Amino acid sequence: MLLGIDIGGSKIAFGLADPSGRILARHRRATEPTGDPGRDLDRIADDVRVLLAKAGAGEGDLQRIGVSVPGPLDTERGVVVRPPNLPHWEAVPVAPRLEAELGCPVSLENDANAAALAEYRFGAGRGTQDMVYLTMSTGVGGGVILAGRLHRGRIGSAGELGHTPVEWPGEACECGLKGCLEAYVGGAALTRRLRDRAPETSACLALAGGREALTPVHWIEAARAGDRWALGELDRFNHYVAQAIVHLAFGLAPEVVVLGTIAVAAGEALCFGPIRAQVAERVWPHQAPYMKIVPAALGDDLAYRAGLCVALEAVGNR
Amino acid sequence: MLLGIDIGGSKIAFGLADPSGRILARHRRATEPTGDPGRDLDRIADDVRVLLAKAGAGEGDLQRIGVSVPGPLDTERGVVVRPPNLPHWEAVPVAPRLEAELGCPVSLENDANAAALAEYRFGAGRGTQDMVYLTMSTGVGGGVILAGRLHRGRIGSAGELGHTPVEWPGEACECGLKGCLEAYVGGAALTRRLRDRAPETSACLALAGGREALTPVHWIEAARAGDRWALGELDRFNHYVAQAIVHLAFGLAPEVVVLGTIAVAAGEALCFGPIRAQVAERVWPHQAPYMKIVPAALGDDLAYRAGLCVALEAVGNR
Repeated sequence: MLLGIDIGGSKIAFGLADPSGRILARHRRATEPTGDPGRDLDRIADDVRVLLAKAGAGEGDLQRIGVSVPGPLDTERGVVVRPPNLPHWEAVPVAPRLEAELGCPVSLENDANAAALAEYRFGAGRGTQDMVYLTMSTGVGGGVILAGRLHRGRIGSAGELGHTPVEWPGEACECGLKGCLEAYVGGAALTRRLRDRAPETSACLALAGGREALTPVHWIEAARAGDRWALGELDRFNHYVAQAIVHLAFGLAPEVVVLGTIAVAAGEALCFGPIRAQVAERVWPHQAPYMKIVPAALGDDLAYRAGLCVALEAVGNR
Repeated sequence: MLLGIDIGGSKIAFGLADPSGRILARHRRATEPTGDPGRDLDRIADDVRVLLAKAGAGEGDLQRIGVSVPGPLDTERGVVVRPPNLPHWEAVPVAPRLEAELGCPVSLENDANAAALAEYRFGAGRGTQDMVYLTMSTGVGGGVILAGRLHRGRIGSAGELGHTPVEWPGEACECGLKGCLEAYVGGAALTRRLRDRAPETSACLALAGGREALTPVHWIEAARAGDRWALGELDRFNHYVAQAIVHLAFGLAPEVVVLGTIAVAAGEALCFGPIRAQVAERVWPHQAPYMKIVPAALGDDLAYRAGLCVALEAVGNR
């Protein structure tokens, strides 16, 4: 059996599966970090034991555990370095600790790479060979699948598409660099911008019930209702995402680019249509039909699949 | 035995090798296109027969022929579409024709991909797994080697790094798009710019003996002699090349980026040093030491190796 664990800032999801990846049992709960990562990991190990029991199995049945967790990571040593959403998780040896607790090898992958593997195997990338995944949540994450395998690159920095420059020099990014895609289309940057700039007349503010409550969710809602300012901001969002995709078109020429989160929320008319049109203008006419740009398909199921796909990749089951 | 043919606008090179790629005999001559591609290919087949005889071999000893030729190509059908440097070569079925003449399978690859394979196997990329090659000749070509294999992408457009946008919208490129790297650092674009803009006082003009004779060779020479205007233009060149490399750093994170032609001519102090410094400023501090940026190593030998490496790749000898 294989087990996937998806550790997020607000929720932890567990998926137990047979060797082919078919889910046998699942569990989800609030993350509720205690401030002591050791205790947090003990609780995770307890959850695993309960889930195994529920499936009529024991620790001895586990072949591999895959963990999806926010970066940065030291994947070699299985250590979580300091994820922004998990307070007090600094240099936490997740893999060695869970291995010792559960007697089973543990593979760690950053959440964007794990999500890319899941969309490739079970979602929007199914049946392709080369896929790029790009997700705009708090930050912007990416994952590159080539010839059916996750491409990690040197020190795991391939697929860090949130930090590909889209302006030069450009605006400051949380990461310390300038002009990064994340500084333009990441959720945190967008939220700041929306709160700073939304005009009093924009539906964004009415929908949010106040400037300090405004998030990208209200912005998309306002755009869908035809709010002009919100639509203008969406043009800007689509422009930068299209630019990042054009870079990929000439570097990697993937079969499919899968966009998650904000793009999925905005949907076909507000986001995918305009992005495809902009990309088509900036690649060669014969290229455009060969690179699909599609929404992520897994939705809530992603959390159960992400860690699992890390385990499947680790055992070489493709 | 394997045979490589490198068809360029001015020269054709032939390299005959044993199955491991060790060169047994070589030949080079002027291309001298006759205006009739059929006759040009007949002459190439005759050259192959002469070279085989010189090595004491016959057509029956040939296992595979690899051809490096300027794009665009239809690699599936082995057809050269319309290379800018080979007049009258329109939709020329190079592979089928040579296969029929010489009784041996023929694989076609665009010259930048073939050069990337050669630098990977015999040159500056030796011993790495992931390498990107970027060459600035008349146009700008690129090739992407991942996990030791050429990554072609959809319809072969991976590694077309000359057309990755570095300005948005940017200057018009020969290819019909705007803002392409090639429009800023390709030899043809640079030559036009140098002739248009070189001030009367610049050493470029004196070295060239006149505005209409000015080429990037004189520009590099002038920069090396300390000419201020030439050095300013080199800053611009380095800036755009660095920008393209930064995109690669976050997308592919290769071990090594190999730069050819103009960068090699300009050398360490004028080009590689400044490019490395600019890249280091625009990637994360822990990334920079892991991505080498080095000059192409094969020089004149490249022509004998490029087609040969296409043959080696085709027979799966790595």
